[in-house]
Amino acid sequence: MKKMQYVYPFADGDKSMKSLLGGKGANLAEMARIGLPVPPGFVVTTEACNHYLNKGNQLWPDLKSEILENLKSLEEKTGRTFGGAKPLLISVRSGAVVSMPGMMDTVLNLGLNSDTCESLARETGDRRFALDCYRRFIQMFGDVVLKVNHYSFENFITAAREKRKVRTDSELEPSDLEKLIEDYLATVRKESGRDFPQDPNEQLFLAVEAVFSSWNTNRAVVYRRAHRIPDDLGTAVNIQAMVFGNLSDNSGTGVAFTRNPANGEPYLYGEYLLNAQGEDVVAGTRTPNPISELKKELPAVYEQFKAVCEKLEKHYRDMQDIEFTIERGKLYMLQTRTGKRTASAAVRIAVDMVEEGLISTNDALLRVEPSQLEQLMHRRIDPDISLVEAARGLPASPGAASGKVVFNADKAQEMAQSGESVLLVRPETTPDDIHGIIAAQGVLTSRGGMTSHAAVVARGMGKPCVCGCEALRIDLARGRFNIGGEEYEEGEILSIDGLTGQVFFGAVPLIEPQFSDEFYTLLGWADRVRRLKIRANADNPDDAILAIEMGAQGIGLCRTEHMFMAADRIPVVQKMILAGSLEDREAALKELLPMQLEDFKGIFKAMAGKPVTIRLLDPPLHEFLPDKEVLLVELERLNLQGGDPGSISEKEQMLQKVSALSEFNPMLGHRGCRLGLVYPEIYRMQVKAIFLALFELVDEGIEARLLQPEIMIPLVGHREEMERMKVLVDDTARTVFNGSGRELPYSVGTMIELPRACLVADQLAKSAEFFSFGTNDLTQTTLGYSRDDSEGKFLPFYLQQKIIPANPFAELDCEGVGQLVKMGVEKGRQSRPGIKLGICGEHGGDPSSVEFFNDIGLDYVSCSPYRLPIARLAAAHAVLRKNE
Amino acid sequence: MKKMQYVYPFADGDKSMKSLLGGKGANLAEMARIGLPVPPGFVVTTEACNHYLNKGNQLWPDLKSEILENLKSLEEKTGRTFGGAKPLLISVRSGAVVSMPGMMDTVLNLGLNSDTCESLARETGDRRFALDCYRRFIQMFGDVVLKVNHYSFENFITAAREKRKVRTDSELEPSDLEKLIEDYLATVRKESGRDFPQDPNEQLFLAVEAVFSSWNTNRAVVYRRAHRIPDDLGTAVNIQAMVFGNLSDNSGTGVAFTRNPANGEPYLYGEYLLNAQGEDVVAGTRTPNPISELKKELPAVYEQFKAVCEKLEKHYRDMQDIEFTIERGKLYMLQTRTGKRTASAAVRIAVDMVEEGLISTNDALLRVEPSQLEQLMHRRIDPDISLVEAARGLPASPGAASGKVVFNADKAQEMAQSGESVLLVRPETTPDDIHGIIAAQGVLTSRGGMTSHAAVVARGMGKPCVCGCEALRIDLARGRFNIGGEEYEEGEILSIDGLTGQVFFGAVPLIEPQFSDEFYTLLGWADRVRRLKIRANADNPDDAILAIEMGAQGIGLCRTEHMFMAADRIPVVQKMILAGSLEDREAALKELLPMQLEDFKGIFKAMAGKPVTIRLLDPPLHEFLPDKEVLLVELERLNLQGGDPGSISEKEQMLQKVSALSEFNPMLGHRGCRLGLVYPEIYRMQVKAIFLALFELVDEGIEARLLQPEIMIPLVGHREEMERMKVLVDDTARTVFNGSGRELPYSVGTMIELPRACLVADQLAKSAEFFSFGTNDLTQTTLGYSRDDSEGKFLPFYLQQKIIPANPFAELDCEGVGQLVKMGVEKGRQSRPGIKLGICGEHGGDPSSVEFFNDIGLDYVSCSPYRLPIARLAAAHAVLRKNE
Repeated sequence: MKKMQYVYPFADGDKSMKSLLGGKGANLAEMARIGLPVPPGFVVTTEACNHYLNKGNQLWPDLKSEILENLKSLEEKTGRTFGGAKPLLISVRSGAVVSMPGMMDTVLNLGLNSDTCESLARETGDRRFALDCYRRFIQMFGDVVLKVNHYSFENFITAAREKRKVRTDSELEPSDLEKLIEDYLATVRKESGRDFPQDPNEQLFLAVEAVFSSWNTNRAVVYRRAHRIPDDLGTAVNIQAMVFGNLSDNSGTGVAFTRNPANGEPYLYGEYLLNAQGEDVVAGTRTPNPISELKKELPAVYEQFKAVCEKLEKHYRDMQDIEFTIERGKLYMLQTRTGKRTASAAVRIAVDMVEEGLISTNDALLRVEPSQLEQLMHRRIDPDISLVEAARGLPASPGAASGKVVFNADKAQEMAQSGESVLLVRPETTPDDIHGIIAAQGVLTSRGGMTSHAAVVARGMGKPCVCGCEALRIDLARGRFNIGGEEYEEGEILSIDGLTGQVFFGAVPLIEPQFSDEFYTLLGWADRVRRLKIRANADNPDDAILAIEMGAQGIGLCRTEHMFMAADRIPVVQKMILAGSLEDREAALKELLPMQLEDFKGIFKAMAGKPVTIRLLDPPLHEFLPDKEVLLVELERLNLQGGDPGSISEKEQMLQKVSALSEFNPMLGHRGCRLGLVYPEIYRMQVKAIFLALFELVDEGIEARLLQPEIMIPLVGHREEMERMKVLVDDTARTVFNGSGRELPYSVGTMIELPRACLVADQLAKSAEFFSFGTNDLTQTTLGYSRDDSEGKFLPFYLQQKIIPANPFAELDCEGVGQLVKMGVEKGRQSRPGIKLGICGEHGGDPSSVEFFNDIGLDYVSCSPYRLPIARLAAAHAVLRKNE
Repeated sequence: MKKMQYVYPFADGDKSMKSLLGGKGANLAEMARIGLPVPPGFVVTTEACNHYLNKGNQLWPDLKSEILENLKSLEEKTGRTFGGAKPLLISVRSGAVVSMPGMMDTVLNLGLNSDTCESLARETGDRRFALDCYRRFIQMFGDVVLKVNHYSFENFITAAREKRKVRTDSELEPSDLEKLIEDYLATVRKESGRDFPQDPNEQLFLAVEAVFSSWNTNRAVVYRRAHRIPDDLGTAVNIQAMVFGNLSDNSGTGVAFTRNPANGEPYLYGEYLLNAQGEDVVAGTRTPNPISELKKELPAVYEQFKAVCEKLEKHYRDMQDIEFTIERGKLYMLQTRTGKRTASAAVRIAVDMVEEGLISTNDALLRVEPSQLEQLMHRRIDPDISLVEAARGLPASPGAASGKVVFNADKAQEMAQSGESVLLVRPETTPDDIHGIIAAQGVLTSRGGMTSHAAVVARGMGKPCVCGCEALRIDLARGRFNIGGEEYEEGEILSIDGLTGQVFFGAVPLIEPQFSDEFYTLLGWADRVRRLKIRANADNPDDAILAIEMGAQGIGLCRTEHMFMAADRIPVVQKMILAGSLEDREAALKELLPMQLEDFKGIFKAMAGKPVTIRLLDPPLHEFLPDKEVLLVELERLNLQGGDPGSISEKEQMLQKVSALSEFNPMLGHRGCRLGLVYPEIYRMQVKAIFLALFELVDEGIEARLLQPEIMIPLVGHREEMERMKVLVDDTARTVFNGSGRELPYSVGTMIELPRACLVADQLAKSAEFFSFGTNDLTQTTLGYSRDDSEGKFLPFYLQQKIIPANPFAELDCEGVGQLVKMGVEKGRQSRPGIKLGICGEHGGDPSSVEFFNDIGLDYVSCSPYRLPIARLAAAHAVLRKNE
């Protein structure tokens, strides 16, 4: 049996080996393979990690030998010796299969000890440099591997700077560094209970173990859960010869994107620091320079770097996120990966790359995640309102947000769960804050740049973020912050604009989003590819107009009850409900008819030439009456205070009616077609209003054939219900037609939103001309989850505990609810082959659900207007994925 | 093409031709065929009826000719002429396929007119008789065919009797009858606008049309709906030569059952009148004599009749319901059919007939309708007492009860404990009233339907209940109630009959249910035939003992929450719910443990040797707390009246907790295993109590192998839920086992009560060792019907309008819910072939549902103890029907 290979030199890998070598390792190997300057190194595989985690968290002898063998060839390649007189120093970095920024740990300068530090000093002739490396190594290794609190180190170095009265570490003298090393070593001894390991091999194995173990830190687990990354992928470990950005003034380090990750503009974007190591860019003690300045400082290196970037983009056919180091004027590539980008950047880059001939239109479609488009749909601060800027930071992630200032991620989560809008405000964020960022409307930090943790994570989530707002001073201990010399309490409301970096006091007016040309181009490509038609849920003329703008091919759900809720209508609706006789009820309905008629006219007019599905009244009648508990309390008060007998009696009557109509489980109560059967006069009025509206439009000159009304009966579960409701609609239509002496085409169908409706869909399709699956209610009944209750109660717990994989109201439960939908589709088509099939639950705007609906052969999905672009793109993805 | 035959002489028919000739016609033909004395005649078929009803309600020429041809041979057989000098008179009677007593119409003495009346007078030498026949004919034909109000006739005859000062019609003089005939003919002319038809053929055709048309009278339609008789069966018409019971003193007419239809005793049972026609027996003006007296009055006829009855019973192998006429000492049979009987008679007759060798035991089983047994299971009002009904509600749970009216559950318990009989009277009941229901003799509510809380709980306990008695108005505040405009104090004695829904003032004499030897014999035969096992739903030791008596083979559902509801436990339960910390909750649970333990001990002891399925806590926690609306009102009152700050703050805290826990749709809320996952300590306590109880029983000497605990997890919908709950049970068991140093076998399964559970039953069966279908909740979610709401709201309307065929909470909706159950069965067996499958919804005691459960292959059904005999018999029927 061939022995399992757990270690691969870069020379033996390429970019296709991501699952074995991790993303970073595979790309390092690939860059080496295509001739780019990469320091030599090797990768310990993800399989080794899984083996380690499953087998008692111990490195085993064979693995150690394999690592040491590869170390040996590294020594040969570099002409250096690990722990020797011309010491080989190495970096040890994690590298998961899927990029998990900030989640895993890194150790640089490994191999240093008191001896090799002196050797390095001798070799480079720069004792300060060697001591600085050693100081950094002890600090990083102490923190990451030995779990020494990093503040313990920070305190010493801060004290050293203060004592020397300098601003940066690079201004410290070698003697300061010697003292610092002494203090660091003592700290390690004190806090970890052991001496700092001087044996480089021991350092190496401890570091590898630390990388492996970090796969299961809490923050890594949380990140994987948030991004649905499987737990069994494991991480690789990249071991690479060190190059030094802190060796001289023509050394340096930096990060760059091949295009602007915020807006997609096709220019190099990034920042660098000379005479620095990687962590200095992130730490924020020195402000990095924009990459364009490198052209002046080190023009040759800049040109070389630019060429490398172009080569990488052509090679990977996508925008790259690159890390590099310059050692004494020589460029080294330390990482490349597909760059994260905002939605607008994603759209711009995808469309540009098609124009540049790099990718096909189908590639471009797949480059943009449909759910990402949601970012573009966010409202922005109204530019016409003049606001007084309170402060300004870096525009780290576009979009605007308002909320109460909260300093703590746990508290942010808690307040958000209880329904408050919060803004997470921190000096800087760490991976421990992830849940707070998820919960917040936006993120504001006082430190850190465009590539700081907060910026990267917020952009990934499409969450507004302003970084490095130095005018903001945060006093965590006292729960206060200071802007412009004024103090404010935590809880104050602030607004941020992630597009401009501005910060404002109070909540600010937001406006509707605007879309780029590339956005429309991409969606046009999506429309050519997709099979599913896309409709909108719209209840009024304004929404219908918006729906058309967003590309709707019809209205899939017009909820007529929303027309009842307007302030001027509710008294008439209540009169209708409280009516003591059929005559009284019909009189009230007569008043409502012209109101509904006007709404219908506006909607049909906006949608002329496209189908409009109108759902007849659905909610239980008590929803239109005052709240029972409020009435009870008011009545008790009136009685005790000897209130006016007239108003007592009025309230008593209302209470009686409310009590008679109230329900223990309104979701399963007297609603939908159950209302239409018991009170047919209500549905008759609605149907009449629909046809009268249509005739008025015809009179106004709209061609009759352009009007495509689809009348939808809600909550049908039995064949008889559908048949009788069809008769009611047909009879009412006939009466209106006879009255006007002309006819109009229309169709009658039903909303499939009960398990029973799916089970007997063949019977329903005998009289229903279309089905629209109401997956919101179908989810409630199939799972037995009341949406009103579960989202605030057990559902967050269920999600957190992974009892269910996703919120079934956001993402269709394909396994359960989906099975019923599929059954409904098959049975419906069985008895009426040409039946029109769609869905109008909120899942119509969820990408993974849209893919399911495409695959089971629905004709259309319908969603809220602002989710239409998502649905259009998702429907295109569904086709492309199916053909993959 | 052979012409369709629409008319059959009796000689061409037999009892197998019921669907064509109707029940009456087929049996008349059969009796003629086996040589019994039947006046000759013929039958116009049900097909003729349907043809008539479908083709414009007109007799067509071919049918008329066919009738006249048969009339011709009747003339030949009898030597008489229709409308002639020796006139043939005939009876025209309806005869549906299924017996529909009183639903259809009959005309006697047809063929009489002014001429044939005189002929008949001459022929019989009895002018009074002839005039009496003519008078009867005009009255009957006028009423039934010409739709003349029958009071118009009654008024004349009453006046005539009064004028002559006699009590019966037979005492009227011929001159009185002549005058009466004159008045009758004038009345017909005046009210129907036409002369009374004198042409016998016209009389005949009009009568046939009237019978056909009566198929669609309102009362017939209502009867068919109530008894689920298809509308397209149609009725036959029986045309038969008249024989006259009113011809002389040795003539007469009567009805008889071959056995006692009330108790099944094997003796002739019936009554007769001499010198009378059929309608006189019914009219009540003369009191008929018991059949036994015929032996003295006309001994030869009696003996002949007795022999005929014996022959008929042997021939039909069932108890017969017979009509006969005696004409001048000669016996004629006019009808025989299977006799309707009470449940106890049905049981007695079936068992007797097996002993008499008439039928097999399987026949006997099929002779008793399972649902009929319900009559036998409860205390009843002494049927010999005549009572005046005070009000009437829904017959929610059979049995009768008397007691003092009490509005409050605590008070009911208190009074019952001090030995008083009480009736719990409430607008509606909630789980908080359980102890009151237990304590009361019966329950009466003014609101709620057949499956309201009160009804379900009462049926479960076998306690009489009348629901939704709207004539009863309860004023809780003033401690009074109102019936029929009169006010009464709490404490008044009322009686209820849960079989009829009747309410009476005062105590009424009750008789205990007693089971006859035949009852036990029959159920013993059922047990030998059935394949389904029968278990009981029982929540406490008393119910378990009762279950055993009623033949339970195990407990299919022990609801542990009922153990929480007892008055002495609810404060501890509330303490547990209100606990601010896990420690406090566990402390309260520790108090509850010994209470649950005791209950479990009692149940397991009673059921030793049989399986017991214990369902862990199911209802949402707010069900154990005070009502929110009551708290709100109390708090408002306390605040306004300046109440004690301590108790205000206490109430405020309670209100806060109740509000936090309250739900819009508790049915779809935080209950079932969702509780067990969020509060695992509750389930752990319950599981611990189960095993500690079992070990105590082992210590008391019960063999461990006789104890068969099955622990059931409620409301599972996802695989993860089942897997985690299984781990919780196993871990808890392991802890108890380790603590006691020994083990016990047990199994863990789930209640399948959500559509999703059926859809993913294959996944659930991976960890569930048994499924018990909770068809109550499954019906609620599959149909989207809240049981608490729909019964009082749209469901009665739906049933009345035939939108749905039956109440889905009483009879399983096989088409919808049944489809899911079947899917659950198939998928469950697919991944665990030996999985134990049962149901424990109320459908377990419904015969048609039991048949479905048998057919889809369940292992057992479970129902409330008092429904066990029904389920046992229904399960036997299911097997016999399948083999038919």
